[in-house]
This record gives sequence, C-alpha cells and structure tokens, in this order.
Amino acid sequence: MKFTCPKNALVQAIQIVSKAVSSKPQMPILSGIYFNANENILELQATDYELGIACKIEAQIDEPGAIVLSGRYMQEVIRRLPGEEVRLEFNREEKIVNITSNTADFTLLSLPANEFPVIQPMTGNMNFTIRDNILRDLVKKTVFSCSNDEARPVFTGCLLDVNNSEVTMAATNTHRLSVKKEILDEFNGSIKIIIPAKVLNELLRIMVSEIPTNVKVNCSYNQISFSFDNVYLTSRLIEGQFPDYKRVIPPEFKTNVKIHTHDFLSAVDRVSLISRAGEYNIIRLNFSEGKVLISSNNPDIGKAEETVPVSIDGPDVTIAFNAKYVTDVLKNIDGEEFYFSLNQSLNPAAVKLENDDTFTYIVTPVRTAQ
Amino acid sequence: MKFTCPKNALVQAIQIVSKAVSSKPQMPILSGIYFNANENILELQATDYELGIACKIEAQIDEPGAIVLSGRYMQEVIRRLPGEEVRLEFNREEKIVNITSNTADFTLLSLPANEFPVIQPMTGNMNFTIRDNILRDLVKKTVFSCSNDEARPVFTGCLLDVNNSEVTMAATNTHRLSVKKEILDEFNGSIKIIIPAKVLNELLRIMVSEIPTNVKVNCSYNQISFSFDNVYLTSRLIEGQFPDYKRVIPPEFKTNVKIHTHDFLSAVDRVSLISRAGEYNIIRLNFSEGKVLISSNNPDIGKAEETVPVSIDGPDVTIAFNAKYVTDVLKNIDGEEFYFSLNQSLNPAAVKLENDDTFTYIVTPVRTAQ
Repeated sequence: MKFTCPKNALVQAIQIVSKAVSSKPQMPILSGIYFNANENILELQATDYELGIACKIEAQIDEPGAIVLSGRYMQEVIRRLPGEEVRLEFNREEKIVNITSNTADFTLLSLPANEFPVIQPMTGNMNFTIRDNILRDLVKKTVFSCSNDEARPVFTGCLLDVNNSEVTMAATNTHRLSVKKEILDEFNGSIKIIIPAKVLNELLRIMVSEIPTNVKVNCSYNQISFSFDNVYLTSRLIEGQFPDYKRVIPPEFKTNVKIHTHDFLSAVDRVSLISRAGEYNIIRLNFSEGKVLISSNNPDIGKAEETVPVSIDGPDVTIAFNAKYVTDVLKNIDGEEFYFSLNQSLNPAAVKLENDDTFTYIVTPVRTAQ
Repeated sequence: MKFTCPKNALVQAIQIVSKAVSSKPQMPILSGIYFNANENILELQATDYELGIACKIEAQIDEPGAIVLSGRYMQEVIRRLPGEEVRLEFNREEKIVNITSNTADFTLLSLPANEFPVIQPMTGNMNFTIRDNILRDLVKKTVFSCSNDEARPVFTGCLLDVNNSEVTMAATNTHRLSVKKEILDEFNGSIKIIIPAKVLNELLRIMVSEIPTNVKVNCSYNQISFSFDNVYLTSRLIEGQFPDYKRVIPPEFKTNVKIHTHDFLSAVDRVSLISRAGEYNIIRLNFSEGKVLISSNNPDIGKAEETVPVSIDGPDVTIAFNAKYVTDVLKNIDGEEFYFSLNQSLNPAAVKLENDDTFTYIVTPVRTAQ
C-alpha cells in the first residue's frame, strides 16, 4: 500500500473517525484506524462494535492495500506534519508504515489489518432521506434530555418515530421530556427505534458542513446507518420499549408566560450559582405581577434572587425546578422569546416556542419546603 | 461596610488575589478573600501564609469596614453579575453580605474578618526598584528550569543575586540550568535569596500591563515583597544554599551551531511524539554536514526523524537529550535564531542567543545505547 494525499483532508478524516476508536478497547485492534486505499479513494474506518464511522477522501493511490495504525498516534502525528501533502507507504515484510511530509519522516508499527472488523454497508429494508438541517434540529432539541443511567437503557437514547412523511424525535430521563416533529420530503413506511444519545451527539459533531446535504438513513431492527457527504456512520440500536411519552404532556395549561430567552437564561445561570452546590440544584420561580422572581437558597453559602420582566397570561404560579432542567432546554432552542406554560406548583410545566407547534419540552417540578 | 464599585475592576482584583486563596486551606478563614473599605479605596487580600496578594481599587465607600467572603463564590458571582456597577453591603447583626448589581441580588454568608491574617507591609532593610519588563524577562527565561521536587527545596526556586547594579536570576533542577543577567538603574547593596517558582509564576501572570511600570522589591532574610501598580505581593523565601552554578558552565565549546528557532522547535516537537511515551523522552541530535538530524525511537510505537538545515562551526557531534529540556528553553527565549554550543556527546551543551551574553542555558545530555 502506498498513497499520497493532502494533509488537511487526512487530518479531518482522522478527526471524524477517531471518535469511534475505543479508549478502552476490548481488543488491541480496536485501538487502531483502518486505512483502505483503492482506485484513488482512501477510506478510513474506526469502530468500537457499538459505533462505527467510515470516511472517504481522494488520494493518489500508487499501490492499493489495507493497514491498521494506532488511532492515538496517527491523530497526533498527522496533525503536526510540516508539509501540505502526506505520503504513506507500507512495508509488508517489516509490518511498518513510513509516513513522510516535507522534512518529517515517521515510521510507525502497524496492526494486522485482517483482524479489523471492517464496517459493512447496511442492507436494512427501511430507508429514507432527510435534509441535514432537519436532522440536526431534531437531534439538537431532544438529545440533551436523555439519561446517562446505563441501568435503564431506553432512557439513554432518542426515540425516532417515522410514520409516512411525519418524523418525531423524543427523549426523556423521566424528569423531563423533549419532543420535536418534522416533515420528511417523502417516505411511506413506518419506523420506531431508539438511537443511542452518544451516536446522535457524534452526528451533531460531524454534521457541521454549511453546504446543505441529504442524509440517507437505513434501519434494520437492531442497527441504523447515516450516510452523507464522505461519511458513513453506523450504530447498534437500543432494545426495549420507549415509554408512552404522549401521556405526560398536559392537555392544557392555565398560565402562559412569555419570556425573553437570553435575559431569563442569564438570570437562572446566576441564581443557580448558589443552588448548584446542593444535591438537587433547586431554583424557585415566582410568576406574578408582570415579572418572574427567580431565587435559590443554600444555608451554607447564602441566597440569590433576580427579577426578570415577563408577560403573564393566567393566574400567578410559584414553582421550583432543578435549574439544569431549565437551562439545558433554553441553550438548545433558538428564538429570542419562549413560552413557559404552567398549571400548579406540583404539575409538569412546558417550554414552547412562539408559533411553533413542532417542539415541546415538559419538565417536572420539585417539591420544596414552604 | 458599604461600597459601590465598577464590576470590571472588582472582577480583575478578585482574579489577581484569588491565586493566593488556598484550595486546601489550613484554616477555613484562608478560603476567603478579605475586603477592606476605607477612604474611597477598596483593598482585597488573600493569603495561604506562604504567598500573600493584595490589590487596591477605587470605590465609593459609604461606610468603611472589613469583611471576609468565600473566595470561590465571590469569583463566580461577581464575574456573572449583569450590571456595570456592584453594590455591597454588610449586615453586621446577621453576618451576611448583600451584593446587588442591576436586577441581581445575592446574599452571602461572611467569615469573621478578625480571624483573617491581614498582610502587613514589609519593612525589610533591602530595597531596590526594577523595571517590570526587566523583571519579567529575568523570570521568564529562568523559572521553567526549576524542579518540582519538594524534597529538595532549593531547586524549586530561582536564585536572585543582586550585587550593586548587577542582577542575576538563576534556576536549576540539576539536569539543566538557566542564568539571566540584567543591569539595574541603581542599587548599592547586595542580596542573595531564593524565591519560590510558584510566586514568580504568579508575578508573570499578574504583571501583564502594557504600560511600563516600576516594581519596588523589598527583601528581608526570609521574606520578599513586590509592589507595582495597585498590587502588593509577598512571599516567604526558600532557605538553604543555592548551588555554585557557575562551576557547571563549560568555559568553552568546540562546536557552535546556529539554528532557526521555529523550524527546530517544530521538528523536535514532532519527533518527540514518539519518544514522549517513554520514561525519559529522549531525542538524538546528529549535527553534521550543514544540518541536524533529529531522531527518536520507541520499540512499541516506531521511530521518527527530521532534518533541519543549520550552520555548524566546529567538529560534528551526536548527542541526546530529554526533549522537554530542549523545547522548554526554546519556548521561553525570543529571537529567530539561537546558538547550540557543544563539546562531546557526554558533555553539557549550551543554548545562547546571538549578540546576547546575558542569557545562558546549560543542559546535560543523556547517555544512550549505540
């Protein structure tokens, strides 16, 4: 194997696949990146068996072949090479790879390529295409609501529910719920699967191109793949039944409050400096007389309060939340203003956007003394 | 106590003194910042008994007094306040402090001010004045050579040797030595003390003003203080005898090599990617035929080599170093080019600057196989 390619393209491809390189690999080969050179295309792959990422770049292939190299060292070495081009040559007898770029000359030991579990393109029978900005929006507005608790796997992923052209993504950790709906250009089947949050966060990280693109999604009962630009990402799915989240969305709210997102978010951020040291990070919101009084209290530190003008439609409400459950959603929605919809102190509340029925966030309040 | 002051000035003052707030305080009071308001000056102080920092800012004092507040929370709270002004008021009965800024209102518990070990201005009998840029240069070119090994305290600080108007700073960890000399505008005594590296690093961090200033230095046998702008920094000194470093500076070098700093530093940085995983981070330098071949080797990873053109005056030399001992000095000297001065493979080498006899760096080579 022998190829030459632009350094920047190689750095980028390594960055993309490297998130699938195991930090604690089950087998030594999984600490490596697989390089396959063939017909002027260099393909890189990495997998930890749960998540697999492949990325193709153009290269001048002088001799086709496949090798595996340490993910950690490739990332460090290639990034710092002095030249604009990188030349890589495999010495089959010595099982070493020679990498040269301008004045720099590295020789790295290789891992046995035949041991690498090469990612095979999925042949699932459910396929649809979704625009990248729509997929990004579905993920961004829901994935933060997932749980980290591996003991209850269904809460560590997002539900993807496609029904004809209607697509819904939902996530919950049982204390909060995000639901986002979109319309596909076309799809006539139905899918209901749970995708690990980790994989969706990787998608957000990789899918940053400003040029609009289509993402091809392919699903089977236990696997999903996303294919766009030069990237192919595949993951196992989470088994189990996603809870019937629609039941926790209150049918109506008595109080609707219109709030300036940035002012409210900054104030909650400040007030929660005091509550953050406590186990539950509790802030109290008192909606009354055209303003919300945000307060927190920690007997070891002190207390904080701040007032933000709002526009209240309905009865006054005093309610308390885990501050993180309020700030997380506000950091992930766009829009200068949002609506806080409430019933009573112990009833779930909702965060919504103006003139936008596609997004709903439900958060359970906490019971506090007084 | 009651005062109003600009938020940015307060944030900056807190940042300056906060490095002297103990992260693991011997006594609870040392986790606090002392505030003293008097005659339109607000003074902040923090100390961990070894290092003490005080900083004064202008404030509108409505009621003089002194309080101590949690260093950690003050830093977090003040930084995020929404207004341009901060108003602070102490409630003596409840021992709480009320901090307001625009819409935000914090109440923090205070610590007993009478327990705080207030920093007293030093009355040492040796004083001199040094320009800030000269002091910065003395510290920057030497302090990185100090040891971290607290078991041998004299190596964890820099020697400050002032003799009439000649000032020398030196640091060594026994494997390398930095010596930098400067001339003072005026001083007629003599001082020979060891200042903790930690304190000098804090000085570098604080002394960043672009406006030239004079630093007043005051020494006693066991303490030093630096006074400049609105800052007063004081520290204990390290007891013991600094080694006779002049003896390790070779009187002459047979080979003098002129090297482009940036090119060489980048190459050493790359080549040491391979050696860094090893215990001693060894790179080999082969000076010969108008170039230096930099190489490293790690049987578990591979090897690296790179060539940089240089201008050699004298016999060829092959020598090996801990890569960090080469890169550290090159990151702290200015100058597009430097001189590497060498004798034989096992003799100490020197790094110097062109037309500059004020700086010398000596580094001991490592013995390698072959």
